[in-house]
Amino acid sequence: MANVLDRVRQPADLRRLSPEELSTLAMEIRTLILETVSRNGGHLASNLGAVELTLALHLAFDSPRDKIVWDVGHQCYTHKILTGRKDRFGSLRRRGGILGFPCREESPHDVFNTGHASTALSAALGLAVARDKAGENHHVVAVVGDGSLTGGVALEALNQVGHLRKRLIIVLNFNEMSISLNVGAWSKYFSYLVSGHRYIRMKDQAKSILRKVPRLGDPIIKAGRAMEELVKKTLFPGYVFKELGIRYIGPVHGHNVQSLVDAFEAAKAGDGPVLIQCVTQKGKGFQPARTHPEKFHGLGPFKVATGEPLQKDWGPSFSSAFGAAMIKIARKDERVLAISAAMGEGTGLREFSEKLPDRFFDVGIAEQHAVTFAAGLALAGLKPVVAIYSTFLQRAYDQVYHDVALMDLPVVFALDRAGVVPDDGPTHQGVNDLAYMRQMPNMIVMAPKDENELQHMIWSGLAYGHPASVRFPKAKGLGVPMDEELRVLPLGRSELLKDGRDLLFAVGAMAAPALEAARELEKEGISLAVANARFVQPLDRELILRFAAPGRTIVTLEEGIVEGGAGSAVRGLLDREGRFDIRFLALGLPVAVYPMGKSDEIRAGLGLDVAGIVRSIREFYGAAPAGGAGERARG
Amino acid sequence: MANVLDRVRQPADLRRLSPEELSTLAMEIRTLILETVSRNGGHLASNLGAVELTLALHLAFDSPRDKIVWDVGHQCYTHKILTGRKDRFGSLRRRGGILGFPCREESPHDVFNTGHASTALSAALGLAVARDKAGENHHVVAVVGDGSLTGGVALEALNQVGHLRKRLIIVLNFNEMSISLNVGAWSKYFSYLVSGHRYIRMKDQAKSILRKVPRLGDPIIKAGRAMEELVKKTLFPGYVFKELGIRYIGPVHGHNVQSLVDAFEAAKAGDGPVLIQCVTQKGKGFQPARTHPEKFHGLGPFKVATGEPLQKDWGPSFSSAFGAAMIKIARKDERVLAISAAMGEGTGLREFSEKLPDRFFDVGIAEQHAVTFAAGLALAGLKPVVAIYSTFLQRAYDQVYHDVALMDLPVVFALDRAGVVPDDGPTHQGVNDLAYMRQMPNMIVMAPKDENELQHMIWSGLAYGHPASVRFPKAKGLGVPMDEELRVLPLGRSELLKDGRDLLFAVGAMAAPALEAARELEKEGISLAVANARFVQPLDRELILRFAAPGRTIVTLEEGIVEGGAGSAVRGLLDREGRFDIRFLALGLPVAVYPMGKSDEIRAGLGLDVAGIVRSIREFYGAAPAGGAGERARG
Repeated sequence: MANVLDRVRQPADLRRLSPEELSTLAMEIRTLILETVSRNGGHLASNLGAVELTLALHLAFDSPRDKIVWDVGHQCYTHKILTGRKDRFGSLRRRGGILGFPCREESPHDVFNTGHASTALSAALGLAVARDKAGENHHVVAVVGDGSLTGGVALEALNQVGHLRKRLIIVLNFNEMSISLNVGAWSKYFSYLVSGHRYIRMKDQAKSILRKVPRLGDPIIKAGRAMEELVKKTLFPGYVFKELGIRYIGPVHGHNVQSLVDAFEAAKAGDGPVLIQCVTQKGKGFQPARTHPEKFHGLGPFKVATGEPLQKDWGPSFSSAFGAAMIKIARKDERVLAISAAMGEGTGLREFSEKLPDRFFDVGIAEQHAVTFAAGLALAGLKPVVAIYSTFLQRAYDQVYHDVALMDLPVVFALDRAGVVPDDGPTHQGVNDLAYMRQMPNMIVMAPKDENELQHMIWSGLAYGHPASVRFPKAKGLGVPMDEELRVLPLGRSELLKDGRDLLFAVGAMAAPALEAARELEKEGISLAVANARFVQPLDRELILRFAAPGRTIVTLEEGIVEGGAGSAVRGLLDREGRFDIRFLALGLPVAVYPMGKSDEIRAGLGLDVAGIVRSIREFYGAAPAGGAGERARG
Repeated sequence: MANVLDRVRQPADLRRLSPEELSTLAMEIRTLILETVSRNGGHLASNLGAVELTLALHLAFDSPRDKIVWDVGHQCYTHKILTGRKDRFGSLRRRGGILGFPCREESPHDVFNTGHASTALSAALGLAVARDKAGENHHVVAVVGDGSLTGGVALEALNQVGHLRKRLIIVLNFNEMSISLNVGAWSKYFSYLVSGHRYIRMKDQAKSILRKVPRLGDPIIKAGRAMEELVKKTLFPGYVFKELGIRYIGPVHGHNVQSLVDAFEAAKAGDGPVLIQCVTQKGKGFQPARTHPEKFHGLGPFKVATGEPLQKDWGPSFSSAFGAAMIKIARKDERVLAISAAMGEGTGLREFSEKLPDRFFDVGIAEQHAVTFAAGLALAGLKPVVAIYSTFLQRAYDQVYHDVALMDLPVVFALDRAGVVPDDGPTHQGVNDLAYMRQMPNMIVMAPKDENELQHMIWSGLAYGHPASVRFPKAKGLGVPMDEELRVLPLGRSELLKDGRDLLFAVGAMAAPALEAARELEKEGISLAVANARFVQPLDRELILRFAAPGRTIVTLEEGIVEGGAGSAVRGLLDREGRFDIRFLALGLPVAVYPMGKSDEIRAGLGLDVAGIVRSIREFYGAAPAGGAGERARG
């Protein structure tokens, strides 16, 4: 059979295909996605589930004239393949390649960059308002998974969508799993909508009976009409949406291209907001992903035949060490609870959730609520640990501030994916947390140098009785032995890993490369003590001031933005203490949009690998050799 | 008539009062609130509306054993009066006095500190989960206004409330106004619920008819039962809540103490979440506040007889200058739009909203959506200005980052109430914004020295074509002449206000006290140039480096946290340029919980008034006189 995909260079080509050819095309796309993701890693289940949905969208709508806004974006692979990127699709998630999320820089078909969930409705509403103001008449389509609708910003948007009643098409992809599982009451409501056809049948039955009622006389007629009105108003699925001013169409079979196109065509005719609910299966067409969609959400390379991961030798990661620590800790202290925002699997808490189900709370994609809920728990004497990726905790900046930090409540934040994050691109970098956590009153800010220290830090955070955060990377652990006994680390004390003349103050996972760099520089006559910071707040004042003697150099090193980060904290301490006659270098990351790549590639590109650290420090010393403070000022 | 309030020392005393006495008490409390707020300022309309509601809560529940969590907290005055604070109530919102929001430090009856909206459900759910884990059996009550339910975190919480089905009582106070007006579809839905009794009547009528149906034979019986089931399931108001797993009671007359107590008693009997909807009138008992509740939300002292503000001579504030600038700008450029999150009045945009209603969007209490909605508008070529108080924009940290900054979209943020904020206490301080805005890629960060510069900065922000923010205080303007013509300020260039040997680099509203302090210090032989920074990002590199000559001193001054703020930005620049042989002092605010007071009092307490600035700089020079860099290092 001829390769149908070869004949699709742009979305318009789809219209020349027969239903059978579309069916073949769907199969070919699935194969391409499966092969590529098995090699490069990526979001599999969500993308396999959205193949027909995407075909239908590009059949019914005229992109890029019509604007398709993908929520989260982890279902956009078919869209990328259909919009001129199939030949480069092999470079998915690789350095210089195709991003795994919508990307305006790649194609005019990608309207709005995403990565974090629940933003599509707001952005699409903005586009719809702008369209009407400009007197244009294209369609704006927001494609949203049911999981994303638990996110506060999406619910806030829904409110204004119903209020403004702009022409806007919302495709609600009901795929029975947000990311780790189906959470909460909204989700149940959407399930109810899917079963709504049962109610339609009941309504039809009731109506046909009511039609016979008039023969019984006036009172019944009147009641009958009232009833019919009520039935009409309330019994259709999508009642809530109607109440919100949003027309509802569905549920539609999400793997039947023709049904989807029909529904989209019906939606196009409307003059206000329309919501089309379609039902898809995550992982459609690939049995391992059907059976365990949560394992095939975002994943690394795997064997196509079985779905088994290829990197078996990865060994314990920081995430799995965190998960193990949580089980150990929870068994020692029954007040300890774990909270996740739809990331039980990713944060390493799956085993915890299975072994201690009544101590585990997955709140759905709802980081804000996760934090304030934890505040309530802490208020009553429990010890919640909130496990949220660094980048996603940005969603709850105000809750950390207003509901935890101001009241000095003992909530522990475990920030996985802190530092540079591989493969996922700019939206997932966890580089701001050290800087924003420092802005929270009462917050203790920690970062472990290895997976063993991680367990002690979680335990310590729970012991201090204040808000505390522990940040760690998406990375393999260092393979260090794990202490059996948990220890409370002395608050605000760092660990001297190597002595020397000047100081290299390294935060968390940067301790190991710092040590390596210092050994390298030692050969060149640059003598650096290396401290594992452990605490960014409160700082180890004593240690830092010990090295702050006249003419000395202090270098800080962190995998986070230098603006307001750990280096800035050390600098502030030195300034407040009047230690002006030293030289100071803050190494870290810039406030910028980072290129996609492996962690090592990103770090190397930004000068934060060992070679880059050595180079920066060497240059710094070269520019004004050790002891030369004050020699090279320009006026 | 005897004073009933005198006999109420604690909530339990309420149970000894007759209905007539309760009625008198409500009147007495209203009088006390009105008198106090007319003198001290405060939240009037919301508090007058919640008098009977609070009486009923303290009659039905046993605080502090039962936990009452107030959302926002701007309705807690009656609660404070009833829980042992009536004698100190005259100190409301004054330095060392009673806070206008719940405050755990004041009373065990205040369970959860608030100030920002929409957090009560999450916190209360945490308390309910903790109660059940501890095997306790008290009640947890969240009191939430309908306006707060548009906030994403509240909707996220509702989801888990329905999911966990813990015993929890939600009192939804439907008061027909969130803060500035009734916004959005959720609100409409709640209005519909209030009119729900009509449906109940219809349902009863229908049911009574259906009861006669059986006589007609089997098919009708069957249909009748199905219909009745449907009626039961769907026609009651609160259908949505039921679908979410939450029992609904209401609507209840919110000014009838007995009805409220009855409803609360019914709710106490439940074993899952219950929502009681009561309907109140904002400003109840005070006609001016009834007629214009938006003007009596949060306000300064006023004449009780008429409701007129006492401070007529206040003159134009930064807020009103912003509002006027927006009208002027919008008339020059039709692409300019204004967006508010339920703060049209407070942000000075009321006139804009009246004169240019189709260019004004109030999204309700939904800061996250406001920002991403603006991103969508900007994407399509419009020029949105998002006006949100500094403290409330914390809610949208991630949206600013992910939806605006990463995509470099030209959205302008106008941050009113930046710096210390009078009267409202710790939750309303706008002191983090300079530090967190610096963490956003592509963001231009500005602060005007006066109300004239403010208009130019908004205009400039729109011209630069990048994300831009302008922060200004809750304060009277400086009374400077307003330029007719709008100017685009040179990007990243500060303004030298006074020349001198060393540099005092002052941000925004700190420029005026900086100048005053410098003149004072001049007399003592300390010669400081004063620069109005204008830009915190990008910095005026040229000017700063000009002063960074060996032995010189650079002082930065900002009304924001020094950790990661403007001073830290200047310090970073100096370090990157290798200017180590200078002395550096960053003046600003600490990361801390601030005491309540007037702005002047707070600033003075934190050393940021003119006297404090002079003192700090004098001490700094005294410790190591000008030119003495490097002389006093301790090793």
